[in-house]
Amino acid sequence: MNFGSDNQAGVSPRILHTLVEAASGIQSAYGNDEWSQRAEHMLGEAFGTPVKVFFVTTGTAANCLALSTIAQPWNAVVCHHMAHIAVDENSAPALFTGGASLLPIATDNGKISAGDLAAFVARTPHDAPHNMVISALSISQVTENGLVYQPQEMAALATQAHALGLRVHMDGARLANAVAALQCHPGDITWRAGVDVLSLGASKNGALMAEAVVFFDQALAQNFSLRIKRSGQLVSKSRTIGAQFCAWLEGGHWLELARHANAMASKLSAALAATPGVRLSWPTQANEVFVLMPIALYEQLRAQGVRCTDWYASSVPAGTQLQAGEVVVRFVSSWSSTDEEIAALMDLVHSHQRQAA
Amino acid sequence: MNFGSDNQAGVSPRILHTLVEAASGIQSAYGNDEWSQRAEHMLGEAFGTPVKVFFVTTGTAANCLALSTIAQPWNAVVCHHMAHIAVDENSAPALFTGGASLLPIATDNGKISAGDLAAFVARTPHDAPHNMVISALSISQVTENGLVYQPQEMAALATQAHALGLRVHMDGARLANAVAALQCHPGDITWRAGVDVLSLGASKNGALMAEAVVFFDQALAQNFSLRIKRSGQLVSKSRTIGAQFCAWLEGGHWLELARHANAMASKLSAALAATPGVRLSWPTQANEVFVLMPIALYEQLRAQGVRCTDWYASSVPAGTQLQAGEVVVRFVSSWSSTDEEIAALMDLVHSHQRQAA
Amino acid sequence: MNFGSDNQAGVSPRILHTLVEAASGIQSAYGNDEWSQRAEHMLGEAFGTPVKVFFVTTGTAANCLALSTIAQPWNAVVCHHMAHIAVDENSAPALFTGGASLLPIATDNGKISAGDLAAFVARTPHDAPHNMVISALSISQVTENGLVYQPQEMAALATQAHALGLRVHMDGARLANAVAALQCHPGDITWRAGVDVLSLGASKNGALMAEAVVFFDQALAQNFSLRIKRSGQLVSKSRTIGAQFCAWLEGGHWLELARHANAMASKLSAALAATPGVRLSWPTQANEVFVLMPIALYEQLRAQGVRCTDWYASSVPAGTQLQAGEVVVRFVSSWSSTDEEIAALMDLVHSHQRQAA
Amino acid sequence: MNFGSDNQAGVSPRILHTLVEAASGIQSAYGNDEWSQRAEHMLGEAFGTPVKVFFVTTGTAANCLALSTIAQPWNAVVCHHMAHIAVDENSAPALFTGGASLLPIATDNGKISAGDLAAFVARTPHDAPHNMVISALSISQVTENGLVYQPQEMAALATQAHALGLRVHMDGARLANAVAALQCHPGDITWRAGVDVLSLGASKNGALMAEAVVFFDQALAQNFSLRIKRSGQLVSKSRTIGAQFCAWLEGGHWLELARHANAMASKLSAALAATPGVRLSWPTQANEVFVLMPIALYEQLRAQGVRCTDWYASSVPAGTQLQAGEVVVRFVSSWSSTDEEIAALMDLVHSHQRQAA
Repeated sequence: MNFGSDNQAGVSPRILHTLVEAASGIQSAYGNDEWSQRAEHMLGEAFGTPVKVFFVTTGTAANCLALSTIAQPWNAVVCHHMAHIAVDENSAPALFTGGASLLPIATDNGKISAGDLAAFVARTPHDAPHNMVISALSISQVTENGLVYQPQEMAALATQAHALGLRVHMDGARLANAVAALQCHPGDITWRAGVDVLSLGASKNGALMAEAVVFFDQALAQNFSLRIKRSGQLVSKSRTIGAQFCAWLEGGHWLELARHANAMASKLSAALAATPGVRLSWPTQANEVFVLMPIALYEQLRAQGVRCTDWYASSVPAGTQLQAGEVVVRFVSSWSSTDEEIAALMDLVHSHQRQAA
Repeated sequence: MNFGSDNQAGVSPRILHTLVEAASGIQSAYGNDEWSQRAEHMLGEAFGTPVKVFFVTTGTAANCLALSTIAQPWNAVVCHHMAHIAVDENSAPALFTGGASLLPIATDNGKISAGDLAAFVARTPHDAPHNMVISALSISQVTENGLVYQPQEMAALATQAHALGLRVHMDGARLANAVAALQCHPGDITWRAGVDVLSLGASKNGALMAEAVVFFDQALAQNFSLRIKRSGQLVSKSRTIGAQFCAWLEGGHWLELARHANAMASKLSAALAATPGVRLSWPTQANEVFVLMPIALYEQLRAQGVRCTDWYASSVPAGTQLQAGEVVVRFVSSWSSTDEEIAALMDLVHSHQRQAA
Repeated sequence: MNFGSDNQAGVSPRILHTLVEAASGIQSAYGNDEWSQRAEHMLGEAFGTPVKVFFVTTGTAANCLALSTIAQPWNAVVCHHMAHIAVDENSAPALFTGGASLLPIATDNGKISAGDLAAFVARTPHDAPHNMVISALSISQVTENGLVYQPQEMAALATQAHALGLRVHMDGARLANAVAALQCHPGDITWRAGVDVLSLGASKNGALMAEAVVFFDQALAQNFSLRIKRSGQLVSKSRTIGAQFCAWLEGGHWLELARHANAMASKLSAALAATPGVRLSWPTQANEVFVLMPIALYEQLRAQGVRCTDWYASSVPAGTQLQAGEVVVRFVSSWSSTDEEIAALMDLVHSHQRQAA
Repeated sequence: MNFGSDNQAGVSPRILHTLVEAASGIQSAYGNDEWSQRAEHMLGEAFGTPVKVFFVTTGTAANCLALSTIAQPWNAVVCHHMAHIAVDENSAPALFTGGASLLPIATDNGKISAGDLAAFVARTPHDAPHNMVISALSISQVTENGLVYQPQEMAALATQAHALGLRVHMDGARLANAVAALQCHPGDITWRAGVDVLSLGASKNGALMAEAVVFFDQALAQNFSLRIKRSGQLVSKSRTIGAQFCAWLEGGHWLELARHANAMASKLSAALAATPGVRLSWPTQANEVFVLMPIALYEQLRAQGVRCTDWYASSVPAGTQLQAGEVVVRFVSSWSSTDEEIAALMDLVHSHQRQAA
């Protein structure tokens, strides 16, 4: 019963098969291989616009390298207060940008609205050179609370950002889950909505290790190969990542994988929400389920081998009060989650409830 | 009528006289001059404990170099949300520390209590290596709201910090004003209270350009001369700063200057607080007066040549609401402020009030 | 005919098989997987001493992260003037160390001797804080000229380094080839000889993407997981690298692969050296062959599909003069090179020679 | 007898008088004071072209901030192997540029010629992104060997640099001495010769602490106030530096001071060169005299209170061999050196020679 994280899941057979195929024989190194070049082309096709793409090995590297193109060392980047870049990437944003800062916003509904952004920028000190200069907005789609921005929300937000002179980065570690949830064209929540540069992750959605920085504004890609090299992200056998992206994109496989993960989360969410003593922290919109539950239940589940994670107390909505003995728990489904796993998990939950009653 | 900032004031004649004396003749360079060595000794005398001292040219350099000794690039430093290091030093903390982050706390009373610190650290994600590791607390004394920590408040706070494994830095750009206000021994609010490293500023209190990093924990000073050199702060004619500190400390001149500045602020504060339509934003405890006033009044004062500053709206206490047409204004007195200046300022204020009535 | 680089070769079937096995099913992420833990254990076994190991995705990351543990921002690292870290890793050493510098030595025999090191350190300005402080020596084994340090050379050099107060890093991107060439125990040219920290590469010797930082002095590993995370090298599906190292080490596979590559280079070197107009730039001691040849020959070979690389003119021995129309060319053999490839290459060479005659 | 360094000399009375005048009364801070603005204007007049100027507190800060505008973190800067930025500024260039590297050239005549530059760039590996990308040339005028570039040499060199796509920085810590030596217009060896950005020092030529970054290409100054602030170089009482530059430039005082220093060096050089057992290391062209002398003589002079410095052995011309017991010694004259000091020094030298004979 793995709901620990989608990055603990195995690799989709189709992707693994392609990786094995690519691993044999001679290929040019350092991004000059055929697979990487084909993957870049396929990404342009998938998004419906020409893109410049660079492949890297981790989501942290993708995010922080992307930020380095839109934030000088004296700049600040606005993001949600639970954003992965703000909470879960240690000091990597400062390293890759040479010292830029993050300015986290806490909002009521877990997303940042155009109005939130405008108000935040207005009240942030902006007397340069004493204060930092805000240069960019970074948005996670899916958010770290498992929420999904609608295309029109995203467009309004990016339009506001541009009006304020900010560039827009999207952390798309789970972009596939957002596209699957919205049943929209990938372009509708990215470049058509105003995203300038995207971190696109496949590792959490069926790949082994495959992350990309996708430039919709190709001017930002200037010198990017130098940034990649100097940060230790220029993989010699670059086919490794290119091949995974080819298989991931081929025939819409990425959305197929994401749809399955989302559907599993939806089922799990409904089952957990119907459990006495358990309540959702946030609505389930993609493949992550955030609940508040008694700590005794959480600990018993863990003891019984369920992989799930006690989550940041600071992640709950503004109005929500944790009660005594209550803990936030995150369950993540993946492309490989099964109905049987959910049923087995719920059996354990119900069994605990009976004991506790 | 200069209430713009204490760093717009001129230089105390005693300090200037010593600087002129030091400027003549031959002296070793790079901190090996007699003045710098004497100043270090005098600082130890003033604080009542042996100290290791390095002289630098700006408060930003002093603060950020001090932080670099207690925050590795992957560390975070807790500070008040209006702290100079958080608001007014651009991205210097990240540059000097190699990427450490600041974690600002907003508190109700404008200071950080031991309890505030403990609660903040407890709720901050601390799952290394994903999250940053908090390594230090930085406190401003006088605070950026013009408040002064009592010795026992400071001791409780630093004790809590140490109990949490954090080192303690004090931004003492206006430490002289705090010591003067508290009528305490300088050691009582620094090393005896648990401060590990102090940025000590003289520039705002009668000197021309004289800042120091004072190590109470001398082990932190290891390699500091290398940090000084590589950050462009190793002044060749180092006597420039050493001599100013000698004159500043000699015979308690620093506290004399600070007492005068504080007394002037106290008078001004009382006069402003008694003015209809003007209210204090924070109590006046040292040499800064923060008020809320009608913007029309502020603008007229400025037009009439009064130096004062419209201040960050985000600096007001949590409960305070700015009314329409109201603006935060900072008045700073200095060693050279006079009763006549205050009287002249209040004449303008009263004249405006009569017109407005 | 691939002699372009050993990182253009495919993946050894045994390694690929293990990778496929590891890719399925659930595993903890971020280095907590079973494969990574087993690989760390196997590395300790292989080197005959307990080690602390961290897995990363590129050789540049391995080298520069290793250097960051032995070079503070104000330090300098001595290395050979053709060292990969000095020439081929862009500015990555400065990024990862926060600003440390490299001091390249050009030596007559392509290696650094204990005497070279002592003389270099003695003549390098060392008046701190003005000058940088040399803190480390970095050695490549195999060197970038394809040479191999004998165990006693390595021990003398590291002993000298330690006597000068320097720590010793080894860039072992091709360490397997060195061990195979020397027919020694891996410990004899690493920790027993005085190496403190090793970058160990498998990617050039049959793996897909597998690099490690191996700490023989485990005290240096303090905070290393934070360094890994903040530099974007903490791979979520960390089994990817761990599994490759397991298969690489299993049953001495790594040395088997390296021995084959070395044998192929030896044959190729002899054949090329016997060709009129072609001369060796350096003796062939591992799996790289450096020759000087007429540019016409080089260009024809390339036009005929031979992968080989025109190499840095600055890499030739001090006494060697390039003649007009002569170019340095590097041929690299790999675990997958064949006698047939060499024969086919030599056919082209001889055919060109006949035409030219 | 101070020949230790021109930065050990006192302050010219005219400059000190102006500094005292400026120190009194109220002035805007952070570069908005009247003195700084006047100084910027006067620098434009002195150079005969509009300039954008920023004042800083040390030569290291001036050099490294200037470099940060022409070298991205992945760039390299070519400079002489004895350049102050390469030898005497620790790792400051890497800190201020975010990681750029220096590539030192050793030349036969102590200066870099256009041909030296072209040959060096040609032989430096330039296969991006693996190798660093050379973006700039930095030249010291006066050089660290006390030599002076002729206007036509400088123009040829900068023209060559521009043709190679490099920007040109000049370290003018002793530019006044060069202008005085050449009897040329200051523009002739700076912007008219192709210098893009200049570090201009007054501290070694009669001021107390006054350094400037002078942009001839004003486009490079974009964001420079942010660079200044974040590096702790934005002085609050900025009049301190502005006033010194005003007095320094007023009525050609800077060149007057420099001419005197040069004349003293010339006398000293001739006297030393005529001494048996003492030989010039480099010709004396400005205010520094480099000699090789018996170490016994050097030590006796030091014991007798003469300030002079044993200098880097690596600084001597390529063909020069230090003999046993011979040491390089630097003598620097200043605006305040006197004939009496030189006579007294030479008396000691001759007295030693008699004893030794």
